[in-house]
Amino acid sequence: MHADWDSTACRNEAAERVSAPVIEWVGELDGSLRLLDQTLLPCETKSIECRTVEQVVEAIRSLRVRGAPAIGVAAAYGVVVGLREFMMADRSQLNERLNEVLQLLAESRPTAVNLFWALDRQRRIAERSTSAASVDVVKALLAEARAIERDDRAMCMAIGRHGAELLNDGDTILTHCNAGGLATAGDGTALAVIYAAIAAGKTIRVFADETRPLLQGSRLTAWELSQRGVPVTVICDSMAATVMRQRRVQAVIVGADRIAANGDTANKIGTYSVACLARTHGLPFYVAAPSSTFDLSLASGEQIPIEERSPSEITHGFGRQTAPDGVAAYNPAFDVTPAELISAIITERGVIKPVTVAAIQAMLASHP
Amino acid sequence: MHADWDSTACRNEAAERVSAPVIEWVGELDGSLRLLDQTLLPCETKSIECRTVEQVVEAIRSLRVRGAPAIGVAAAYGVVVGLREFMMADRSQLNERLNEVLQLLAESRPTAVNLFWALDRQRRIAERSTSAASVDVVKALLAEARAIERDDRAMCMAIGRHGAELLNDGDTILTHCNAGGLATAGDGTALAVIYAAIAAGKTIRVFADETRPLLQGSRLTAWELSQRGVPVTVICDSMAATVMRQRRVQAVIVGADRIAANGDTANKIGTYSVACLARTHGLPFYVAAPSSTFDLSLASGEQIPIEERSPSEITHGFGRQTAPDGVAAYNPAFDVTPAELISAIITERGVIKPVTVAAIQAMLASHP
Repeated sequence: MHADWDSTACRNEAAERVSAPVIEWVGELDGSLRLLDQTLLPCETKSIECRTVEQVVEAIRSLRVRGAPAIGVAAAYGVVVGLREFMMADRSQLNERLNEVLQLLAESRPTAVNLFWALDRQRRIAERSTSAASVDVVKALLAEARAIERDDRAMCMAIGRHGAELLNDGDTILTHCNAGGLATAGDGTALAVIYAAIAAGKTIRVFADETRPLLQGSRLTAWELSQRGVPVTVICDSMAATVMRQRRVQAVIVGADRIAANGDTANKIGTYSVACLARTHGLPFYVAAPSSTFDLSLASGEQIPIEERSPSEITHGFGRQTAPDGVAAYNPAFDVTPAELISAIITERGVIKPVTVAAIQAMLASHP
Repeated sequence: MHADWDSTACRNEAAERVSAPVIEWVGELDGSLRLLDQTLLPCETKSIECRTVEQVVEAIRSLRVRGAPAIGVAAAYGVVVGLREFMMADRSQLNERLNEVLQLLAESRPTAVNLFWALDRQRRIAERSTSAASVDVVKALLAEARAIERDDRAMCMAIGRHGAELLNDGDTILTHCNAGGLATAGDGTALAVIYAAIAAGKTIRVFADETRPLLQGSRLTAWELSQRGVPVTVICDSMAATVMRQRRVQAVIVGADRIAANGDTANKIGTYSVACLARTHGLPFYVAAPSSTFDLSLASGEQIPIEERSPSEITHGFGRQTAPDGVAAYNPAFDVTPAELISAIITERGVIKPVTVAAIQAMLASHP
């Protein structure tokens, strides 16, 4: 590769460099879901309009929208999109269609529990009003999706506020994947902590793991931090150990896709590696996630379903074949970090530290 | 990426799938150095002919030939290539040119010590015969380059023999980067151990870290192992911790670019990460390297010069821009694994275990 591989640079269209909302409901009851297509970042900021539930499912599955909280918000709106043609249908037809839509969305991705949490919220809304007209049910579902989006923004702010206290002025933070504004309807989870610390007057720098195979770190986190003027340096995932050993990093913060009752945390593949390395180098390892990311029905991380994605994401990443024909590749999209490697979990309700079953239960039982 | 990014697959030209020598001297005194262009793998097996020392330097710098032992062999022949026009010159002119050629080659890459070791061997050959005619000096230098190549092949076999005893039937081995036949004139260092264990009747499988940024694991190791029928599964570097936790790996073997007197080992970036993770998971971590990789002039790994390569290898790595314009990236090509994380160093003279200053001195003082 190298010299021989002509590199396609971003077309520098400054006009494209405006910030587009990650998730936006456009219109009213028969509106559509506009999503920033994150597969095109960092070169293009282009949105897609989803007018069918199948388009929403495709967007989630293809990672056009990704990040556990953002998937939850998109799915909540996806339910409304899926009922467009049924507002005038009778309730039994609507109910049937609703089950179909919930099913389709539930099958889009398996690991992030916020997806199922949002779908459950919508299911309960519909079940609450068994005698209401279909149009009124859809109205209530749109209102609930908007509430989920609003709650998500508030959650990001609260996570930022609680987490910022854990960072010291002058710290450099390592993060993995993207748990920022691109992963939520608001300012993010892990990155919200960084934004809040900076807003509080602290100087914070960031190392972003590029996060193979899909490079959410270099494509998304580096883009998002650059847009906001936060100093960021991209490294390959394999370099995290070296920057830790060089004492260039003072803490690690990541997001989460699902957290079991004991605190075991599923997050983007590579997170467990970073957690092990943080422990080896005596660095705090923080998880930032809303309460909707907890799945208390699972005793431990061993029960969290882990999505395996196509080997071609590894062997044919980014438009080139980089492994020989027919070679096997293993591509789990997530891994599980055991609770004992997690210094604290930063939620919108407060900081869970140390991470124990009891501390998690107490925090989730508390009122926000 | 994904659906939107058309992936350029290898053109399946079966005829290209023949094994070409990694390094080959073609012709006699005024011959040329033929190198398999490893930047084109796994899609093309195409060789380049170096007829000037500048071409050899470019080939080393661009990683067309790479791997510490192979760089040493290529540099030894590079000296001969650089003297082509000086065979009829008088000795003072030859000596002047020789210094120039040695200097050019020495500046090609800084970390692999085998380069400097090979150049020193050539310098001593020239110094030994101060009164000989230039043509005879070049003859002696070609003979020495051939001896270095021959020694390299023998070294690979001996490393394989000593190391094979450390592997158990049924083991799956994790390796990082490429320390195989593509990195030497023979069967490799780390991979020679695997080949020898298989030849001894053991069933061995391999996980190959893809090895960002330049993907020597997926491009080269997976290709080389596939060619030889060794079962190999490619993973992203960030997945090594997960396969270790899943107990799918029983040992790690890597090569080395320079080993200090205390056993601290410079190798491809990411090696230190794998060594930390092997320790965390209680797995043996082996380094396989010839005695020419030791640099006893350095007390510890802190003194090993670490090459930093262009950030564009990270930000524009696959023929695509994968990080935003202007973002910083840190790209050390190597890292240093401290001796205390290394279970044993497998050399052509025997296995150094445990890795201590005294054990290293004793092994290097022994006769092969």
